[in-house]
Amino acid sequence: MKEYLEFAKELAKKAGIIMKEYFYKNNQIEYKSDKSPVTIADKLINKMVIEEVKKKYPNHGIDGEEEKYLSDREYLWVLDPIDGTSSYTRHIPISVFSLALVIDGEPSVGVVYDPYLDEMYTAIIGEGAYCNGNSIHVNNIDLNETGSTIDFCMWNNMKYDTFKVITELRKNNAISIIGSVARACMAIASGKISGELFPGYDHGHCDMAASKLIVTEAGGKVTSFYGKAQKYNKGIEGALISNGLIHDKLLEIIIKTEA
Amino acid sequence: MKEYLEFAKELAKKAGIIMKEYFYKNNQIEYKSDKSPVTIADKLINKMVIEEVKKKYPNHGIDGEEEKYLSDREYLWVLDPIDGTSSYTRHIPISVFSLALVIDGEPSVGVVYDPYLDEMYTAIIGEGAYCNGNSIHVNNIDLNETGSTIDFCMWNNMKYDTFKVITELRKNNAISIIGSVARACMAIASGKISGELFPGYDHGHCDMAASKLIVTEAGGKVTSFYGKAQKYNKGIEGALISNGLIHDKLLEIIIKTEA
Repeated sequence: MKEYLEFAKELAKKAGIIMKEYFYKNNQIEYKSDKSPVTIADKLINKMVIEEVKKKYPNHGIDGEEEKYLSDREYLWVLDPIDGTSSYTRHIPISVFSLALVIDGEPSVGVVYDPYLDEMYTAIIGEGAYCNGNSIHVNNIDLNETGSTIDFCMWNNMKYDTFKVITELRKNNAISIIGSVARACMAIASGKISGELFPGYDHGHCDMAASKLIVTEAGGKVTSFYGKAQKYNKGIEGALISNGLIHDKLLEIIIKTEA
Repeated sequence: MKEYLEFAKELAKKAGIIMKEYFYKNNQIEYKSDKSPVTIADKLINKMVIEEVKKKYPNHGIDGEEEKYLSDREYLWVLDPIDGTSSYTRHIPISVFSLALVIDGEPSVGVVYDPYLDEMYTAIIGEGAYCNGNSIHVNNIDLNETGSTIDFCMWNNMKYDTFKVITELRKNNAISIIGSVARACMAIASGKISGELFPGYDHGHCDMAASKLIVTEAGGKVTSFYGKAQKYNKGIEGALISNGLIHDKLLEIIIKTEA
């Protein structure tokens, strides 16, 4: 596992260089059918990871948000080349590279890299979570307590209406849209915020695989939007991410709000 | 005016050093009565600006979000030491230093400094807006058009309910919470997003004075939340900031939603 982690960190550093290079360039933004943007940097990083995995682990598969290869393999590298592409296109320095080695559906090695702060978040299953080598842990702030912040992602025509849930939560909690679910998860893993609502399903596992592991190893909890366990080698059913303490309370509000 | 701008830029650089230093430290967060946080860095920067203005322009006043001095003067330095303190406390690199020389209520020289990207946004009244010396301009993306992003700020018990307005706008526009009204205004001034809803009133002029000038000089429009002109040497009545093109459309939605 340590070897896989070192490999993932190398790819993250390479991805970070590409992200920073294109952050200052005309990024040739295109819009997908759901109006979400994709840039040349997303595509280049996805290609780079496929090439490197093919060279080093020819029997492994790759499932990237922009491109995949042998994605039915038991050992699957699941990646989001740039999580937070919208922020990226707005020249807001909130976006990360996210890569996990998912074994039979279970994220087992994960890295999330923030190239702007040069922060490398890492985890190996069962071995804790780290940022630049320092152990990190979730906070224990309760819901509605001063300092409680819940983050959310949203877009048009969401299958899971995070906005409706936030309408309820905003009464007694600070609300944020950090702009990258993986970056927000790292804020949870390092105790800076308490929860995150993520409505992704189709490619949602690409955004969430590494964060699932890192948040869990930092003492938090990650489930589907409705509180179920799920696999990360295929589409997911949204995600609810928290410091653990508030997980059931958030679930209760989700179920009440969606009813 | 050029001399005032050079002075403001010097203070911004000094503020940036303090911001980055405390970004990585225990920042001794306290919460104000409205649950918004304040850090030691906010206070240090506010004090530094008061000292420097007193030395250089002893007849000028200073009105800072954390502390003021001779704040009834015609020549008034209006500042937010850290705009985006919540993001700052969450270790999210989205916060800026904002300083304007307001003459008889009119922002006449302004700087907004982003220390993470080392981006200095500047304007002198009538002379255009710049980022690191390069001319910047708002975009011309219409409301509901692909690429249209409206940002907002929110907190508990807002006098102007930006969240209600966003509930309407989210149907056909991307929504963001960049996390600092001044940083969001710089994204408008440089054409990256199209509009911003700001509910601040009490100390609201501290957040908005420099941005009012920079966005206007970049070709955009800034009014009160309900579309009126206003002075920036005292509390304001919220703010509506846009690329100009969509200003009246946003106003219409605000008035309809609030009715």
